[in-house]
Amino acid sequence: MRLIDEAEKLFQGEIVELARPECLRLLAQSRVGRVAVNDADGPLVAPVNGRTDGVDVYFRLREGSLLAAALADGRASYEIDGFDEFRQAGWSVLVRGDAHRISPEDLPEHRSEWPRPWAAGERDVWIRLSGDTISGRRLQP
Amino acid sequence: MRLIDEAEKLFQGEIVELARPECLRLLAQSRVGRVAVNDADGPLVAPVNGRTDGVDVYFRLREGSLLAAALADGRASYEIDGFDEFRQAGWSVLVRGDAHRISPEDLPEHRSEWPRPWAAGERDVWIRLSGDTISGRRLQP
Repeated sequence: MRLIDEAEKLFQGEIVELARPECLRLLAQSRVGRVAVNDADGPLVAPVNGRTDGVDVYFRLREGSLLAAALADGRASYEIDGFDEFRQAGWSVLVRGDAHRISPEDLPEHRSEWPRPWAAGERDVWIRLSGDTISGRRLQP
Repeated sequence: MRLIDEAEKLFQGEIVELARPECLRLLAQSRVGRVAVNDADGPLVAPVNGRTDGVDVYFRLREGSLLAAALADGRASYEIDGFDEFRQAGWSVLVRGDAHRISPEDLPEHRSEWPRPWAAGERDVWIRLSGDTISGRRLQP
């Protein structure tokens, strides 16, 4: 175990905090992330196609889905990340805030910012997650 | 808006449920995932190096970290996924259960199954997340 522990340390990297502009840049480039919310069984995570306007995060869900029910109102978070398994490196950005159901008229004006679902089916539940706190970290090899 | 909606549908894929053996296979191959847990500010998501023994998920955290405090005991979930932005396809697996702090002696016997953190620093908080429910989905283009 000692030898393995020593070898392990050779490849370990340092975690550094990302500044807010870097977090916002990564969010702006991203088309898919993960939303975390509580249902009756505790916290769950599910991928969604989210977009940001630089402040909040928007995504669309299917009416009647578990995620839509859980996200009706309340605290939630949205995470994006990227990893390099070979270099054992990566980064992540976390947005935490309140989820609210909105109507399409409440969306930001820029069409390109709209979340476009990759999955088929009507997705008429529009959610806005307020970006109360935005933080990020990078693991550098 | 109508034209954009029509174009959007051309590229949308179908979501199918993954069978449990497929979920377990993906979990066994994975070295990094995301844990979701609640702290005082609601649900949060953070990447961790997790490993599974086919039933539960194990990972190591830094003593005193926010994640370690939030994960002391209670409901949590672990998610892995993979996306192909070009094909707008992807998959995800979600493990939901109870998080418990364990001692290294409680780990499964197979050494190769141990979670090896990519990040430096002592990570003496060992967590086992019971795999109460394991589910997965694939979005095929």
